[in-house]
Amino acid sequence: MTERSAPWKGVARRTLCDARIFTVAERLMTGPHGREAAFTTIEAPDWAVVVPVLEEAGRRRLVMVRQWRHGSGRFSLEFPGGVVEPGEDPAAAALRELREETGYRARSVRALGDLSPNPAIMENRFRVFVAEGLEADGAQDLDEHEFVEVEAMDEDAALAALGSGEGDHALMLSAAFLYLRYRARA
Amino acid sequence: MTERSAPWKGVARRTLCDARIFTVAERLMTGPHGREAAFTTIEAPDWAVVVPVLEEAGRRRLVMVRQWRHGSGRFSLEFPGGVVEPGEDPAAAALRELREETGYRARSVRALGDLSPNPAIMENRFRVFVAEGLEADGAQDLDEHEFVEVEAMDEDAALAALGSGEGDHALMLSAAFLYLRYRARA
Repeated sequence: MTERSAPWKGVARRTLCDARIFTVAERLMTGPHGREAAFTTIEAPDWAVVVPVLEEAGRRRLVMVRQWRHGSGRFSLEFPGGVVEPGEDPAAAALRELREETGYRARSVRALGDLSPNPAIMENRFRVFVAEGLEADGAQDLDEHEFVEVEAMDEDAALAALGSGEGDHALMLSAAFLYLRYRARA
Repeated sequence: MTERSAPWKGVARRTLCDARIFTVAERLMTGPHGREAAFTTIEAPDWAVVVPVLEEAGRRRLVMVRQWRHGSGRFSLEFPGGVVEPGEDPAAAALRELREETGYRARSVRALGDLSPNPAIMENRFRVFVAEGLEADGAQDLDEHEFVEVEAMDEDAALAALGSGEGDHALMLSAAFLYLRYRARA
């Protein structure tokens, strides 16, 4: 892979709107053809997600969460995760979200990938982790408007549920892709 | 999987901004706790992506594209794809983008998944296809500000490139997850 310089140079940037959880910007750029074009991008905090592995008596389960999602207007089956707070370590954010959403702590966490959720428009990063050595540590700690159901699913069943129905969250499939690669190497 | 009614009911909707390629909305909703909360969502056209399989003399390659992405500010290695135009069949959109970006036509196309690119905020769908029986059919047909490099990569190398570096587009990993499932069943 060759490192190349950016073919587009920034000319100007303006905020189109501040939407609370993200900011929409318009970037005027000059391209390799010497012409200008405007591109819309979204500035948001980084997101972190964690694949939580629960091993008991040789049975390998993944701790999934299910919640209503306002973009799709559907229930969504997901790995725990959320926003990385300013200055927060992404792995710590993943473990914090795991604790808050499921009540589990983890003895170990490992980075599986540092992705872009959608490089065409999103400026933030999507960090993927696997957590092992889970220990139940009390009740959920949810925000006022959060309602999260927890389900420890057999690994095969959890992965099979991704790709259709409630398992239609594309970013969770990308985490599963990295998790399967990790498992194949383990 | 039980079908359940929506726990949140819409109260009001207002447009926060029209950002050309998408619209940002604020939705006021009443939750299962009887309280109101506002959620930001993004209305956009559906997106379609296609895994293009080139088989020659028993060698299986995937036709990848590489382009500069203005959200991440990096080059990105991707499967061909783009926006589904109003009224357009998603499979036809995938094949159109394949033809425009790579110059290949396909004799067959099959749906691998109907996902949400991010159900927390995105209202649109992300459609994933596999195309087989590829035939070269002339030059690229790109938009004025599009610069797309085409590379037919051995299947193993293409999949290995996803997850880091230029292969950091999370939605492409979700397509690869569905493609690997399809291959395992074939």
